[in-house]
Amino acid sequence: MRRATILLLTLAAIASAQTPVETARTYRQAHEVEILQQFAELLRIPNVARDTVNIQRNADYVAAEFAKRGVKTQLLSSYGAPPLVFGELNVPGATRTLGIYAHYDGQPVDPSQWLQSPWEPTLWTARHDEGGHAIEFPEPGEKVDPEWRLYARSAGDDKAPIVALLAALDAFNQKGIKPTANLKFLFDGEEEAGSPHLGAYLTTHRDKFADVDVWLFCDGPVHQSRKPQLLFGARGDAHMDVTIYGANRPLHSGHYGNWAPVPAMELAQLLASMKDQNGKVIIEEFYDSVAPLGDEERAALAKMPNYEDELKTELGLAWTEGQGETLPERLLLPALTVRGLSSGHTGALATNIIPNTATAALDVRLVKGNDPEKMLDLVERHIRQRGFHVVPEDPDEETRQQHPKIAKVTRSRGYPAARTEMSLPIAKDIAAAMTEAAGEEVLLVPTMGGSLPLYLFTDLLGKPVLLLPIANHDNNQHAENESLRLANLWYGVDAFAAVMAME
Amino acid sequence: MRRATILLLTLAAIASAQTPVETARTYRQAHEVEILQQFAELLRIPNVARDTVNIQRNADYVAAEFAKRGVKTQLLSSYGAPPLVFGELNVPGATRTLGIYAHYDGQPVDPSQWLQSPWEPTLWTARHDEGGHAIEFPEPGEKVDPEWRLYARSAGDDKAPIVALLAALDAFNQKGIKPTANLKFLFDGEEEAGSPHLGAYLTTHRDKFADVDVWLFCDGPVHQSRKPQLLFGARGDAHMDVTIYGANRPLHSGHYGNWAPVPAMELAQLLASMKDQNGKVIIEEFYDSVAPLGDEERAALAKMPNYEDELKTELGLAWTEGQGETLPERLLLPALTVRGLSSGHTGALATNIIPNTATAALDVRLVKGNDPEKMLDLVERHIRQRGFHVVPEDPDEETRQQHPKIAKVTRSRGYPAARTEMSLPIAKDIAAAMTEAAGEEVLLVPTMGGSLPLYLFTDLLGKPVLLLPIANHDNNQHAENESLRLANLWYGVDAFAAVMAME
Repeated sequence: MRRATILLLTLAAIASAQTPVETARTYRQAHEVEILQQFAELLRIPNVARDTVNIQRNADYVAAEFAKRGVKTQLLSSYGAPPLVFGELNVPGATRTLGIYAHYDGQPVDPSQWLQSPWEPTLWTARHDEGGHAIEFPEPGEKVDPEWRLYARSAGDDKAPIVALLAALDAFNQKGIKPTANLKFLFDGEEEAGSPHLGAYLTTHRDKFADVDVWLFCDGPVHQSRKPQLLFGARGDAHMDVTIYGANRPLHSGHYGNWAPVPAMELAQLLASMKDQNGKVIIEEFYDSVAPLGDEERAALAKMPNYEDELKTELGLAWTEGQGETLPERLLLPALTVRGLSSGHTGALATNIIPNTATAALDVRLVKGNDPEKMLDLVERHIRQRGFHVVPEDPDEETRQQHPKIAKVTRSRGYPAARTEMSLPIAKDIAAAMTEAAGEEVLLVPTMGGSLPLYLFTDLLGKPVLLLPIANHDNNQHAENESLRLANLWYGVDAFAAVMAME
Repeated sequence: MRRATILLLTLAAIASAQTPVETARTYRQAHEVEILQQFAELLRIPNVARDTVNIQRNADYVAAEFAKRGVKTQLLSSYGAPPLVFGELNVPGATRTLGIYAHYDGQPVDPSQWLQSPWEPTLWTARHDEGGHAIEFPEPGEKVDPEWRLYARSAGDDKAPIVALLAALDAFNQKGIKPTANLKFLFDGEEEAGSPHLGAYLTTHRDKFADVDVWLFCDGPVHQSRKPQLLFGARGDAHMDVTIYGANRPLHSGHYGNWAPVPAMELAQLLASMKDQNGKVIIEEFYDSVAPLGDEERAALAKMPNYEDELKTELGLAWTEGQGETLPERLLLPALTVRGLSSGHTGALATNIIPNTATAALDVRLVKGNDPEKMLDLVERHIRQRGFHVVPEDPDEETRQQHPKIAKVTRSRGYPAARTEMSLPIAKDIAAAMTEAAGEEVLLVPTMGGSLPLYLFTDLLGKPVLLLPIANHDNNQHAENESLRLANLWYGVDAFAAVMAME
């Protein structure tokens, strides 16, 4: 009895000596199966922004789960837009307010490319292309391997932070930990569609956000080395589809080949004129509006780990664009990517025709200083300079008869990049909290390569924004077979707990 | 009573004065609805070469219909190959033998692109994109407008000649007309797949064809001006698919854009390096093996109608490749056509990824003098010259690590062009018969732009080959919504009757 009593007293002393981060971690470790179950429950609700019925189901689910944990929630609605889930948790005596943003919608899917339905979360022992195999979900109390992967659309982008926040709140509630800041949650339902209504929502409800000191964006991946990172900005994004026209109908490639224009060839020649062999965009003025880097940003870049060789090996690449420059450096420049090409068919469906159109889907990533419309204007001007008559829709016969080369250019809504000053004082506290949670120093990075509508917060609301991503970089974000590595979910729970409880 | 008797006698006198062509035309005019019904019956049998069950149904149907008309038919079979329908009709006293070739298979279809099922023949008052509308099939005795169109896969390419031959034989049988030559029919079941077994069939059964004086190939379209034409050759054809590789998985276009290779851009640069802005192929030695034209061919070219402006207007083109040269001239050179492009998605399915492969399907049309494999060797050498490591299948990780640029090149079986001397004596008789049938002078053309396995007949069997096409040029051959203009079917019946009965 005596020895048992001493042991209990010792354990109690250890427990009371735990920091909030340690207490939350202990709670999380004991409830990993339950957290996974909740994650799967959320992932089972399809979440493509156009699917209005299921988008509403996602919003309802998220709001209800936060409400259960004491957060005052509200669905902000606007005609024709997915609801924005808003939540607030006020802490008596708190001296600051953290805004926390994530999104519950996901990229469109092509189910034929997936191993299983994108909406049927499946647990794998490792990536399917790295020796993993599918396994049953564990029962409560069973051991969970942190290298396991959960496969589903939005497992990485961007439902993981939502579930990690719920788990951190559970830990706080169960263990009696109080956040040290007031919290305002915002969960977007159309981030993958470019958040077209978020600006209007923020304007309408700006009073709700007036007291936020800093917004934390919980999206995107950690560093490729699996090190945690805190980022100070994100690139902007703009899209353009370009369609080149040949004859007014598909032609037999024998009877007309060598005489009729070949749209796929003209498109190839046009695209080839946009970029040199080293990946430099050769569209006039493409780099002219890029904002120069400051000293802190240069210093942060210099501190980034040299991870080029490992990354090239992992991705199976013997060459990258912009030889001699690293990935973090390249992300500080605008990018022009061909994200899709189509004309006729390839493979078994190919037929002997000259397809009468060819289309390229272009993605232009923007950095600080780039205006989305102006950047697309440069691309369109380049298309004109190459001799194309640019039209906004399929050309009529009169237009066809008048112009040797015709390109249809359609744009979709884009938004600019945003960057927060790296000297922001609260950023140092957040970095310290994340470092404690991760057990290793967090990387400070000037910008994420991906895009988020940060400009609405920095420019419209006038608040600084920091990015706190938790997903593994190899999560196949935006592609088929998206998968979250469970260790990253656990890091997310710990990191959110640390930030919510930081001094 | 008296006047009626005189009228009948007069009609009988007119009938007896009719040439065989006129008699056959009269019969055809009285049976257009029945001919159409038979056409639709044949078109309802799907005929993609890979669809072995339906290919057999086509062969059985064709053989049975010719047998009904007194042709001794036989299905030539070979393991794994569609049957070749062989038929012979021997005429006592005939001094020559005509070989007649057509094919009953059709190009693959993408049903989503069709107005109706490709296998449900539908009658239209005109082209669907030129004000036509679908109508019911007429009842026997009802009037048939020669401008009507029959929509279905293979309506133009190449079931129309089969049905026209059956109708011509009906006319001969019903009106007691005897062919003036022995006839040997050959109907191919995999022409659209490149006739991979036809050579073996002809070798095995060459005794059956030993007495053929000239082969008539009934395939392809008449001139764009709707004038009838007799052609003395066809281009050859060879295919190559080229796939360019990026990372070993699709990457997020934000997190990696401007650093990761973009396969679609590298493919565009490669394709652009193959052809100049005027449509000239700039692959080294591409034109070196082209056989020079003879005097008769030059003279025939000079006699071709100048139809460039009408054709450009019809096709909605303000520019064509090889400015200053006409279509018939351009068809006497090899052609390089991009018949398909694919990488990721365009339009609504496009996502923000860098697709990890991009593929182009290339079609190389060949002229006399070009060896198919050697021409593809030139293209492949060009790809290597552009810095690509060429592989025959998807690269493994080791290959990826070693080579900055990787292209998978796959070839499919091709065959060479063939041309018959334009001075061939029997060609003059055939041209005269066709001119009588059409009521206007037939054009003599050195080569068709499309491809047919003529080389097997010219090179393997050592026989001259002439092409007698009947389809309208605007039949959407090989593409969706293929349609035959009925006037062209009637011309086919009349032309075959004229040739079978020529002195």
